[in-house]
Amino acid sequence: MVDRPGGRPRVAVVGTGLIGGSILLRLHEAYPDVTGWDPDPATRAEGRARGVRVPDDLAEAVGDRDVVFLAGPLPSLPETLLTVAAHTGDRCVVTDVGSTKAGIAGFAAEHGLTGRFVPGHPMAGTERSGLTAAVPTLFDGAAWVLCPASEGIVAFRTLVGLLVDVFAARVVPMDPAVHDSVVALSSHLPHVLAGSLAGAVADSPLRDAVLGLAAGSFRDGTRVAGTPAQRTADMLFQNRDEVLRQVERVRAALDELTAALDRGDLDALVARYRRARELRHALPDRVFHEHRRAFPTDGDHAAEVAYLRDLGAAGGHLTGCRAGADVVTYAGCRPPAEG
Amino acid sequence: MVDRPGGRPRVAVVGTGLIGGSILLRLHEAYPDVTGWDPDPATRAEGRARGVRVPDDLAEAVGDRDVVFLAGPLPSLPETLLTVAAHTGDRCVVTDVGSTKAGIAGFAAEHGLTGRFVPGHPMAGTERSGLTAAVPTLFDGAAWVLCPASEGIVAFRTLVGLLVDVFAARVVPMDPAVHDSVVALSSHLPHVLAGSLAGAVADSPLRDAVLGLAAGSFRDGTRVAGTPAQRTADMLFQNRDEVLRQVERVRAALDELTAALDRGDLDALVARYRRARELRHALPDRVFHEHRRAFPTDGDHAAEVAYLRDLGAAGGHLTGCRAGADVVTYAGCRPPAEG
Repeated sequence: MVDRPGGRPRVAVVGTGLIGGSILLRLHEAYPDVTGWDPDPATRAEGRARGVRVPDDLAEAVGDRDVVFLAGPLPSLPETLLTVAAHTGDRCVVTDVGSTKAGIAGFAAEHGLTGRFVPGHPMAGTERSGLTAAVPTLFDGAAWVLCPASEGIVAFRTLVGLLVDVFAARVVPMDPAVHDSVVALSSHLPHVLAGSLAGAVADSPLRDAVLGLAAGSFRDGTRVAGTPAQRTADMLFQNRDEVLRQVERVRAALDELTAALDRGDLDALVARYRRARELRHALPDRVFHEHRRAFPTDGDHAAEVAYLRDLGAAGGHLTGCRAGADVVTYAGCRPPAEG
Repeated sequence: MVDRPGGRPRVAVVGTGLIGGSILLRLHEAYPDVTGWDPDPATRAEGRARGVRVPDDLAEAVGDRDVVFLAGPLPSLPETLLTVAAHTGDRCVVTDVGSTKAGIAGFAAEHGLTGRFVPGHPMAGTERSGLTAAVPTLFDGAAWVLCPASEGIVAFRTLVGLLVDVFAARVVPMDPAVHDSVVALSSHLPHVLAGSLAGAVADSPLRDAVLGLAAGSFRDGTRVAGTPAQRTADMLFQNRDEVLRQVERVRAALDELTAALDRGDLDALVARYRRARELRHALPDRVFHEHRRAFPTDGDHAAEVAYLRDLGAAGGHLTGCRAGADVVTYAGCRPPAEG
């Protein structure tokens, strides 16, 4: 999978909180040689207590690695990328796990790192934080976005194989800008709405009585408001334009519902909820057609990248990637066209 | 508990879908003599298949009962109340499980039924429906609102004892109008927001890609959009004024969040999310002081009703009620005043 004769890839994870720590713990089960690093000495000590090699020196943690995952707070990732790039060889593949992708993709391009940096985003998480909350199963079978580009296509293929092997990930290939629009709706708006509902109740004279009657719908609808505030604020800030654009669509839907209620139009309200329910039921009921697509390993990779980005935009994902001497073959799943 | 020498109360449940069916199944474990009835013959047959006595005739199901629970679609409840009242004796206690309370409370008063009808609302449910989805554990330990009034205080006391004994319910005594304001925030707004988010995605060109990346935050934030559309629309309609009032508060909180994002005010955004998080963390962390309060069984019951309504408004609940010849004693739990 990784172009290193006879051996498993040497992997490192830099930034080992909830997300990076969970990645590290799963990698450690597959590749005991994995290394970790975190700016916090106590977190490094805890990593060692969990049996992982965690040097105090970042250069030592990443120097001989084939693949490095970057985690940690979103605003820290660009600088971490530069530091890690400076301490690793040109063939070392680097990816990140930040929740927005256009910014870091542009930053990597400006610094000439597109050939070995592949923007990434695993789609799982909890409202907790820190290595103590990390579990090796957090990303099992999760959707994991990777952003392919012609220049870094070899690094992309390497990562697809690793993520499928180690995490059984459904790798979703996406253009960075499309990713940011999609996660505004799939992840950031749920945080905005949960924050609005919990905030409104916090400010209400009915607060205590609401807590007394809160059942499943309130618990679910506010769960992600329990996420550390700085983490949520950073996430929304990094995707500000798209969040503000998509919040207008949700606000329009909210206006439609409340207008129907206000004018006493029960039929319109039922019709809107039927449409919402149909969408919600499409979530667990998704079906896919499996396929295989092969591309030459050499050339300009334009067709390969176009296939990949289209697959992700259509709601599909990769379940494998096998790169031979002349041909790379992807195994993919795609929803039916009418879906 | 029920004023019937030597015997368990004879209970009936009218309307045996998800909610009524779950109540019926739990009651059947405690009181094998319980009867059920539903307007749908197939549902009646299924009730019998589950071992419950379900006559085809409503009058036969309720005629000799001490307590009757009314369930079924919200708009059907007033008429069902009149029918059941006509087929039962003056000492038969009737309660309902509808999700709004001021309307049915006023209807019962108009029809002279306040002395034996106690508006109720158990705070649990799922997005599924029908007796096939019913489970006897649905309301175990749930908050269960009952609306006490001086005229029907004996019926109220009877129901508190029954709900605590059979369902281990936390009985929340509330004024009907306060209940409707509180559930607008605790239950109806989560449905409005879930419908808005799912509706916006259903209408978006990014629909398929959003479904591909939907993780926990989207699943939780849209879960109740999977509820049958008619049921959700009825629920919102029956509480229209309060939903429209409370949606303005949530909209104001949403405006505050998006304005902070728009003007690049990270500190304000973090502060808003800290407040939302504090509220969310107060949910599982709630602590209570236990207490007992005794009232004379006779008199005008004004102090008793005032104590009860105040307890619910403060986020507290009852865990027991023992009515002797001269004194009724409530066991209650109340959050600390500073909470």
